Amino acid sequence: MSLASSPLSYADEGQWQPHQLPQLKAELKRIGITIPAEKLADLSKHPMSAMVSLGGCSASFVSDSGLVVTNHHCAYGAVQRNSTAEKNYISNGFLAKTRAEELPAGPDSRMYITDKVENVTTQVLSGITPAMSGKQRHEHVQNRIKALIAECEQDKAYRCSVPSFHRGMEYYRIRQMMIRDVRLVYAPSDKIGNYGGDVDNFEWPRHTGDFSFLRAYVGKDGRPADPSADNVPYHSKDFLVVSAQGLKNGDPILLAGYPGTTSRYKLPEEIRFARDASYPARVAEYKSDLSVIAAATQGNANAEVRYASVAKSINNRLKKTEGLLAGFARKDIAAIKDAQDAEFRSWFSQHNADQSLLKELDAVIASDMALNEEEFAWSVATNSDLLKNARTLYRLALESTKPDAERKAGYQQRDISFISARLARLEQSYVSNVDQARYTAALQRYNKLDSKFRPQGLDILLPTPESVAALYRQSELGNTATRLAWLKKDVAAFQQSDDAFIRLAVKLHDIGLSLEERRKEVDGNLERVIPQYMQAVIAWKKSQGKPVYPDANSTLRVTYGTVAPYSPRDGVSKGPFTTVEGIVEKHTGKTPFDAPESLLAAVKEKRYGVFKDTALGTVPVNFLSSADTTGGNSGSAVMNKNSELVGLNFDSTYESITKDWYFDSAITRAIHVDIRYMLWVMKEVDHADNLLKEMTIRYPAK
Amino acid sequence: MSLASSPLSYADEGQWQPHQLPQLKAELKRIGITIPAEKLADLSKHPMSAMVSLGGCSASFVSDSGLVVTNHHCAYGAVQRNSTAEKNYISNGFLAKTRAEELPAGPDSRMYITDKVENVTTQVLSGITPAMSGKQRHEHVQNRIKALIAECEQDKAYRCSVPSFHRGMEYYRIRQMMIRDVRLVYAPSDKIGNYGGDVDNFEWPRHTGDFSFLRAYVGKDGRPADPSADNVPYHSKDFLVVSAQGLKNGDPILLAGYPGTTSRYKLPEEIRFARDASYPARVAEYKSDLSVIAAATQGNANAEVRYASVAKSINNRLKKTEGLLAGFARKDIAAIKDAQDAEFRSWFSQHNADQSLLKELDAVIASDMALNEEEFAWSVATNSDLLKNARTLYRLALESTKPDAERKAGYQQRDISFISARLARLEQSYVSNVDQARYTAALQRYNKLDSKFRPQGLDILLPTPESVAALYRQSELGNTATRLAWLKKDVAAFQQSDDAFIRLAVKLHDIGLSLEERRKEVDGNLERVIPQYMQAVIAWKKSQGKPVYPDANSTLRVTYGTVAPYSPRDGVSKGPFTTVEGIVEKHTGKTPFDAPESLLAAVKEKRYGVFKDTALGTVPVNFLSSADTTGGNSGSAVMNKNSELVGLNFDSTYESITKDWYFDSAITRAIHVDIRYMLWVMKEVDHADNLLKEMTIRYPAK
Repeated sequence: MSLASSPLSYADEGQWQPHQLPQLKAELKRIGITIPAEKLADLSKHPMSAMVSLGGCSASFVSDSGLVVTNHHCAYGAVQRNSTAEKNYISNGFLAKTRAEELPAGPDSRMYITDKVENVTTQVLSGITPAMSGKQRHEHVQNRIKALIAECEQDKAYRCSVPSFHRGMEYYRIRQMMIRDVRLVYAPSDKIGNYGGDVDNFEWPRHTGDFSFLRAYVGKDGRPADPSADNVPYHSKDFLVVSAQGLKNGDPILLAGYPGTTSRYKLPEEIRFARDASYPARVAEYKSDLSVIAAATQGNANAEVRYASVAKSINNRLKKTEGLLAGFARKDIAAIKDAQDAEFRSWFSQHNADQSLLKELDAVIASDMALNEEEFAWSVATNSDLLKNARTLYRLALESTKPDAERKAGYQQRDISFISARLARLEQSYVSNVDQARYTAALQRYNKLDSKFRPQGLDILLPTPESVAALYRQSELGNTATRLAWLKKDVAAFQQSDDAFIRLAVKLHDIGLSLEERRKEVDGNLERVIPQYMQAVIAWKKSQGKPVYPDANSTLRVTYGTVAPYSPRDGVSKGPFTTVEGIVEKHTGKTPFDAPESLLAAVKEKRYGVFKDTALGTVPVNFLSSADTTGGNSGSAVMNKNSELVGLNFDSTYESITKDWYFDSAITRAIHVDIRYMLWVMKEVDHADNLLKEMTIRYPAK
Repeated sequence: MSLASSPLSYADEGQWQPHQLPQLKAELKRIGITIPAEKLADLSKHPMSAMVSLGGCSASFVSDSGLVVTNHHCAYGAVQRNSTAEKNYISNGFLAKTRAEELPAGPDSRMYITDKVENVTTQVLSGITPAMSGKQRHEHVQNRIKALIAECEQDKAYRCSVPSFHRGMEYYRIRQMMIRDVRLVYAPSDKIGNYGGDVDNFEWPRHTGDFSFLRAYVGKDGRPADPSADNVPYHSKDFLVVSAQGLKNGDPILLAGYPGTTSRYKLPEEIRFARDASYPARVAEYKSDLSVIAAATQGNANAEVRYASVAKSINNRLKKTEGLLAGFARKDIAAIKDAQDAEFRSWFSQHNADQSLLKELDAVIASDMALNEEEFAWSVATNSDLLKNARTLYRLALESTKPDAERKAGYQQRDISFISARLARLEQSYVSNVDQARYTAALQRYNKLDSKFRPQGLDILLPTPESVAALYRQSELGNTATRLAWLKKDVAAFQQSDDAFIRLAVKLHDIGLSLEERRKEVDGNLERVIPQYMQAVIAWKKSQGKPVYPDANSTLRVTYGTVAPYSPRDGVSKGPFTTVEGIVEKHTGKTPFDAPESLLAAVKEKRYGVFKDTALGTVPVNFLSSADTTGGNSGSAVMNKNSELVGLNFDSTYESITKDWYFDSAITRAIHVDIRYMLWVMKEVDHADNLLKEMTIRYPAK
């Protein structure tokens, strides 16, 4: 009943690389997973070959014709860009009744299907010498990685990456087929897909129908192709069978997806730095920026619309950061880490005569935290969308003077279409006087920061808050055509420009570069020291019989757990299910609690059909599990013990936010949309019979 | 999971008169009560003969030497009056290690042991004629009742009453032995007994150790006696055995006590009147009065202390009234009653040719509601403690001119010691300038009330808000000796007095009396019509096989239910238990969340002893049951199926507040302190070994 840590506190922790799963056979069996661990480890086999990345979101195939299911919020951009005042797919939902009606998801919409993972640690690390500085080491590694990627991407069907695991201990080259023609198939109304909106974000009880369907299209040759009317649905050899039976409390689940970032192996002092310095500073920054946006857009409908998603994104980060601080206040995670760290250091000293590693570790971490403060100040000093765009353009021009292989990662030929899409997209979320107000306020805040955190030489190069208005008058970068035209210009054009933001970008370049060089030095040192530390940690854990998973890094991971309620405080239990009756209970008729009439009527008439849960006596909407997820796991397939699809991951509870630092199995819960709610909405509300027919759905025995 | 009403919605409803229990044999058996219903119906047998009333609170004997257990808040006055700065029993707790150390509970502390209940309906109603007006009928009934009481109280050991059931349908004469020497035996620190304080009042999760022990003392002859050092502990032939095993989720409970008032049989229009008129007016009145008290006492420690309990009491009423309004907003109880009322009226019209009863009912209820508005205005116009005391004194002088039997109930010889104690007690909660501020503000509010609700002729008799200060300068009633001296004065002395508040009381007397006479007329009509209506309701319920219990009226009742959690909203479950770990979780070190160090240490060291619940793995603190309780049930014994003591009732959840009007079994839960927590505190924190030894405790088998 209490928050005290449970004896099972390692039970469901772990975002495992698929190849690690055979080490966890006993655990998987214990919770009731029947699919063999060896099969789960093989990316070419079911179910892992049905997994899809959307770049930032996760998804999975649910038919052999490239039909993909993911979250509503992951397909929101596609819905939005196809909506007009007349055809408002956001509030009315969208359903293609035929393939011909499927709509383009947008020029920067991609699907990635991981098909090959190779351990390239030896290749990446060969040639490194002890004499190298941090920066030299970091650049050496980056160059090796770029070469490995270039080699892999010779086949243009693929996008490759070489992420590091355990902060540089291992490197894997990951090859993903990149689908470039993605189409929107079906999204329910945001009155279902975003029910509860920002109010319910990170909250439980939850009643969000956060699901939608996309389809992968390829050329007639079956290979990825640019969007074209001639393209055909991708033949997805593997896909998930859908179980309309769903799950009950205590059932095991498997969850596969692309979690973004975690910090599970950080040192206690890094937690204290986040808790006492960097998070409070970010919270203050988010709040100030939000209030400036609110004041500058107020009463201007156009500006309000353009900044709605900007504010939503800042709000989301704010709520998450505040949740982290609240979690740190609730439970002294630094103290828990102190105890673990002390235990490790004691073990380490027993097994290693030379303690210099730990001293070096502490020194490198200290330099990382110090540099972080300057980077934060720099981010405040450059918080203008026009300035950020100008800097990107100037940097691209500078990098373009070098051979492609030597350019900074992110500015190579392979990146230009993404940069161009980003630069074009600014017009959807930019209004000159709002950006001006944000930058003016940011500079005022920068001027109040402790001078020791301000990058040396920056102050005199920055505009004064009073002079910001003039910058906006003297810049044409707010014009999309002008902005995109700079993509083609050379370095000299930038250096001779009289556009105020281009000039500012040129002026600030050296300071930015110097921070970048210092970051390389620190990262190179981290990449040298942390892997040694992690090897020691792994040996320590191995001595206890525990395998170690690497921190999340946007690569394909598998986690498992059980459907489970939790106790946020003594005497209260939450979950594991919500029901359609709870939608009616929350319904006010006002956004974000404005359920469609057709849905309310179906609940009132108890038209539950086969989607009724016998224990609940109604249709479940969302459920909780103990699986280990984080941002990037949005849209991840939630599977039952037989790897059938039973839901989609889309969020986690407020009490879980600190799991990025410390997984507390007693209170950490991921929030999933129940497959029965999805199917029920498709049948009773949206009549998506074509999709229900296309999927392979296993209905419960009568 | 939802708020929708459950199919069991009559399951645990009912505050039954003990003699009704044999009608409920099947129900009692269904939930698992093993003690025979016939035995529960007999007040002379165990367990009912172990039940005690404290007048406003309930209690029970737990040893054969008059040891009584009740709530901490029910014995709070006794703790407070014995506390000094040096011996602060409020914050340190109090434990008499020997009988000699037991402390007087105070001059107005009483214990009542119900020993005889007779149906006297025939006697009360005989002589009533159809020609009588409402007032005549009411006075006739009151005179019969007074005579029945006087007859019963010829033996001074007893206190008697003749409450009406079903608003005049039946009258029972209840004889109670009245113990006049009550002593304080043990009360834990208010850090335990009032943990959570006002913040947690009506709330769950709850962690309040709301229990304490008193002892009944009698003369050497075994009969009630005035407090004296010569008195001896009362020999309580019956008492409850204590089960240290406690209960688990789903277990049946029996609860006996003295619930105060409910309104379960009111008409839909009475609910609407409360919801739309009288409750909102009261909430506004409470809030205004509280803000005046806060402003007038601020910065004056003495005034703050004197008004702390006044403010607490108003706050409690405010929270309850706001809870009622919130409940009405959450669930349309008036509409539910409309449906029930329509069903009843349809049944009635099928069985009665003459519909005049229903018309008459509606007319009488309308007159009752109209008079209520004037009575409310009157209460605002007289909201001064000095004025109230002056009115009581003058009324007593007037009544004293009549033969005792003819005096108004409450002003007879039998009442004088209570009146005197109340008049004396004012000094604990009175400060002249605060009372002056309250009365000034009350008159300002009165002047804003709709003139149609102001009693005719009152306006010109009232002081202006501006003249209130002069009244307080020209009155000596704030002096306790002066105030008590008026008890001995005759009517002429009042009429010739130049004390400003005595003069005001004399001046307002006729208006007050006229309201009283009109109330008698309305009540007499209610007493004539409602019983006919209730007989029809009972016949209607009987046709459905359902027995009917009367509304609560501070008489001994039995209710039953099960230990059960509830869902305040879809996806959330509360209870049924809290644990000692939850105390630590809430502990801030600041009142009201300031648990004693010794308790925190015992939890930290997991010194649970035999009081550990195997399912919870720790000591339970409070628990929820579905039993039907209300104010007055504070301190009620919670018994297991074998009538062993397993807890004390002390509150109910916020969502339950509307149960006074409508019992919704899905969300109505009473809050009990668990016997295991009581015993654990006695053993581990307060070392009350003498009491643990005195009680008969059945410990769980090892």
